[in-house]
Amino acid sequence: MLFKDIFYHSFVRLCQFINLGDSTFRFYNNSSSFIHGGLDPPNRDTTPVVGQKQIHQRIQQLNFRDCHAKISQVDSQATLGNGVVVQVTGELSNGGQPMRRFTQTFVLAAQSPKKYYVHNDIFRYQVYLVNSWSAYRLFSELFVNGH
Amino acid sequence: MLFKDIFYHSFVRLCQFINLGDSTFRFYNNSSSFIHGGLDPPNRDTTPVVGQKQIHQRIQQLNFRDCHAKISQVDSQATLGNGVVVQVTGELSNGGQPMRRFTQTFVLAAQSPKKYYVHNDIFRYQVYLVNSWSAYRLFSELFVNGH
Repeated sequence: MLFKDIFYHSFVRLCQFINLGDSTFRFYNNSSSFIHGGLDPPNRDTTPVVGQKQIHQRIQQLNFRDCHAKISQVDSQATLGNGVVVQVTGELSNGGQPMRRFTQTFVLAAQSPKKYYVHNDIFRYQVYLVNSWSAYRLFSELFVNGH
Repeated sequence: MLFKDIFYHSFVRLCQFINLGDSTFRFYNNSSSFIHGGLDPPNRDTTPVVGQKQIHQRIQQLNFRDCHAKISQVDSQATLGNGVVVQVTGELSNGGQPMRRFTQTFVLAAQSPKKYYVHNDIFRYQVYLVNSWSAYRLFSELFVNGH
């Protein structure tokens, strides 16, 4: 249960990252790696940033505001060095934009028996896909009602 | 460059897993954790299997044959314990079935300076989504041509 507790609290904190503004960076430390981007230029982001200060700057650049997230799946496993590896998929909306699917992997590392930091954070928006119902509505408007 | 080499070779081997049949399990060891499933019952898979023998049995149950994979994104970072954490997204077809989107996270751990094993493997098919062009063709057949 301890493992689940650690995971749960860490994950909830991570979900809150996007609305924490300037305090977000405290979950990382100087050995943390962070990448957050899409699949295409100019938001492709091919090189992770490393270190608490650098991650703080990058999060500020990402300009999170009025974020909404839906989580569809979370898996976690114990990993090397008493860490926890977590894979999350879901949808995220930032600044009033439509929800976009994302995949995120993070590795939590123990700082002390009850304190963890984020050692790795890999976040990618996915290829633009729409679900079948949205597609139906879109195309029925275009090709049924419109013609 | 060494890191990239390690990653590349490990990743290529992982991509080949699905067509390696009975030799697949040798990339795992007795401390490895493995989960491979969808999002809904009965393929939900909520508990990882642990250990080389158990993973071998699980892979046999998954009945991989005539697999095809398309990789859309790979990210990797050095992680705890001289390991490598990798996040992969793409599409996979098994046994002549349609391509399905998946997300996979794995952690590679050093066995010796040039030899790695898979310490963690988290594989999830994603919510069934179709791209807009497929959806257009589907719904135009149903609602334009058919009515």
